[in-house]
Amino acid sequence: MSAVRVSLGSRSYDVLIGVDLLSGVGGLIRKKLGKHRYAIVTDSNVASIHLPKLVESMKRESLDVQEIVVPAGEPSKSMTVAEQVCEAMAGARHDRSSVVVALGGGVIGDLAGFVAAIYYRGIPFVQLPTTVMAQVDSAVGGKTGVNLRKAKNLVGSFHQPSLVIADIDTLLTLPDRALYEGFAEVIKHGIIRDRNFFFRLAGFRRELDTIRGGSPDHSALAAVIQRNVEIKAAIVSEDEHETRGIRALLNFGHTIGHAIEAVAGYGELLHGEAISLGMVAAANLSVSHAGLPEAERDAIHEMLRCYELPTRPEKPLNVAAIMEALLLDKKFASGEVRYVLTPSIGSSGVYRTVRVEDIRWAIESLSR
Amino acid sequence: MSAVRVSLGSRSYDVLIGVDLLSGVGGLIRKKLGKHRYAIVTDSNVASIHLPKLVESMKRESLDVQEIVVPAGEPSKSMTVAEQVCEAMAGARHDRSSVVVALGGGVIGDLAGFVAAIYYRGIPFVQLPTTVMAQVDSAVGGKTGVNLRKAKNLVGSFHQPSLVIADIDTLLTLPDRALYEGFAEVIKHGIIRDRNFFFRLAGFRRELDTIRGGSPDHSALAAVIQRNVEIKAAIVSEDEHETRGIRALLNFGHTIGHAIEAVAGYGELLHGEAISLGMVAAANLSVSHAGLPEAERDAIHEMLRCYELPTRPEKPLNVAAIMEALLLDKKFASGEVRYVLTPSIGSSGVYRTVRVEDIRWAIESLSR
Repeated sequence: MSAVRVSLGSRSYDVLIGVDLLSGVGGLIRKKLGKHRYAIVTDSNVASIHLPKLVESMKRESLDVQEIVVPAGEPSKSMTVAEQVCEAMAGARHDRSSVVVALGGGVIGDLAGFVAAIYYRGIPFVQLPTTVMAQVDSAVGGKTGVNLRKAKNLVGSFHQPSLVIADIDTLLTLPDRALYEGFAEVIKHGIIRDRNFFFRLAGFRRELDTIRGGSPDHSALAAVIQRNVEIKAAIVSEDEHETRGIRALLNFGHTIGHAIEAVAGYGELLHGEAISLGMVAAANLSVSHAGLPEAERDAIHEMLRCYELPTRPEKPLNVAAIMEALLLDKKFASGEVRYVLTPSIGSSGVYRTVRVEDIRWAIESLSR
Repeated sequence: MSAVRVSLGSRSYDVLIGVDLLSGVGGLIRKKLGKHRYAIVTDSNVASIHLPKLVESMKRESLDVQEIVVPAGEPSKSMTVAEQVCEAMAGARHDRSSVVVALGGGVIGDLAGFVAAIYYRGIPFVQLPTTVMAQVDSAVGGKTGVNLRKAKNLVGSFHQPSLVIADIDTLLTLPDRALYEGFAEVIKHGIIRDRNFFFRLAGFRRELDTIRGGSPDHSALAAVIQRNVEIKAAIVSEDEHETRGIRALLNFGHTIGHAIEAVAGYGELLHGEAISLGMVAAANLSVSHAGLPEAERDAIHEMLRCYELPTRPEKPLNVAAIMEALLLDKKFASGEVRYVLTPSIGSSGVYRTVRVEDIRWAIESLSR
């Protein structure tokens, strides 16, 4: 087991990464947070695979637990479901001394984190991410929230977890598509911050197959997760509330990606798949606006394909609807376009020279 | 116009108090916050009286405004209505540079403040409180939130306003019951912190009638509001997040009061009326557990009656249901009872000697 520290003064916390952590998670939680009442929030899919092991581990430590299971899928990331979870917690008399435990992927982490942010105006929470996407991205950094009808993540809070425990073994139960979508964020971290790591990912693809094929040595996968958590933790530590332009770098590919995802209808494209298309568009814009060499743009395309991620839309895109959705995106604050581009794999910056017409061109370029 | 500063480091702000401020509010807001897009949240009652003047004042300053009107009454303080307000703001393309303006009483301030806390993970907001309750209490201090089915204020955020503007004139349009309920919090502030102020309130009752009768001199009312804001601001500055036991003093009368309110059904009893009953119960407990002289307890009862506030329930209380609701109250964190009592009018403390049976006795004492 290794630990990555997210340094945020009094809100600092550790991300623990290792194999078979869930069976001992009760002890880790008790050691860090103490003897409280715990509300475990999870979804119907994850509950059937991992919940019994977690509950058993917590009960072994004499921790009092309530289990709250919401339907699997993006529609659970809503104000309505957040309210239902709060009502369930109130019904079980959870108070400000209780702790929320989020067991699941990004939807569960964002939802349960938001509940923890607003229940009694904020109580502690623990993230137990069970997907690549959640382990390398959403469980680290304190962004919590739910979706509105037309806009993802528009409502939420900054609320840092007290502890994050990433059990590598949970990734091996993921179906292909759910596994690979997480690599969109992995590849993104390489593009924006770590050139060597990016290029090492090509070789890791084979190791991943070996691990999924039954190899007992999971250390290569653990190392990939750890490097991603380090990158995310460093960025979050520098710019917790996305006010300094550093955390914004994590939005590489997300401006167009979010809009494509919203227009496709949640569930049609997985988040990571939409971000993959968004990164293709951002790479194309990087060539024209940031001087990214065409060979590096092609390397980005190839790496995405290497992890079974889309680089072209399967169905024709509704460009007008995507542009409409884009105008709700956070990067369009006050009408000014700020766009994250990469001049060279391993580095990135916020560019102000991208115009709305350029973005339309980049979306159209996906279908060419 | 006078100003009371709420000192909270980088989150400090002014509460401006004066007559006829609404007609110049656009200039005050523009001076403090600048030229942004503004979302005004108000209720159907307040909209018909004050909204046109506010909108005109803001448009005169070339401020872009959206008007969002929710139904008047406590049921609007819900996750559902908060989501509707967020959807309306998203529909009007408000982003993280927008500002929320809360025009109304406690329900509107709490609801709109909560929306400002969670929209884009937090945007600035301005409080324009139009009731005594809101001006002396809920608009100052940054507690925002909504109700769950069975528990008031159980969901919310700490989110400080950027500016509070209390226009005394708005109080003169209040119907009797809505005016007097605010004096429950005024009397509370005297009990917990300012003995001289408490006893001066008896004489102020007549001045209030004179002002409502048409006297052009509103200075006595402005002075009462100002003294209350000073008391609230001092307590909030000492203990912003209610972690040091000081802000908890503001809960005098609220433990039982909230429970009575919840059981009566929202709307049956006004908040201030329920708090009045809660303060009678707390005064009775103060005699037995904190050494409050019986004559001072009687003075508290008399002062409440002087402002048309109930000191006995009109209908028999459902004690069992009230006890049930109490166990959801924040003061029962971890099962430990902490109760705010007054040993002498003008001072208060958190007592740990009150048992659950004592609280039941205090509720029953209301009907004797």
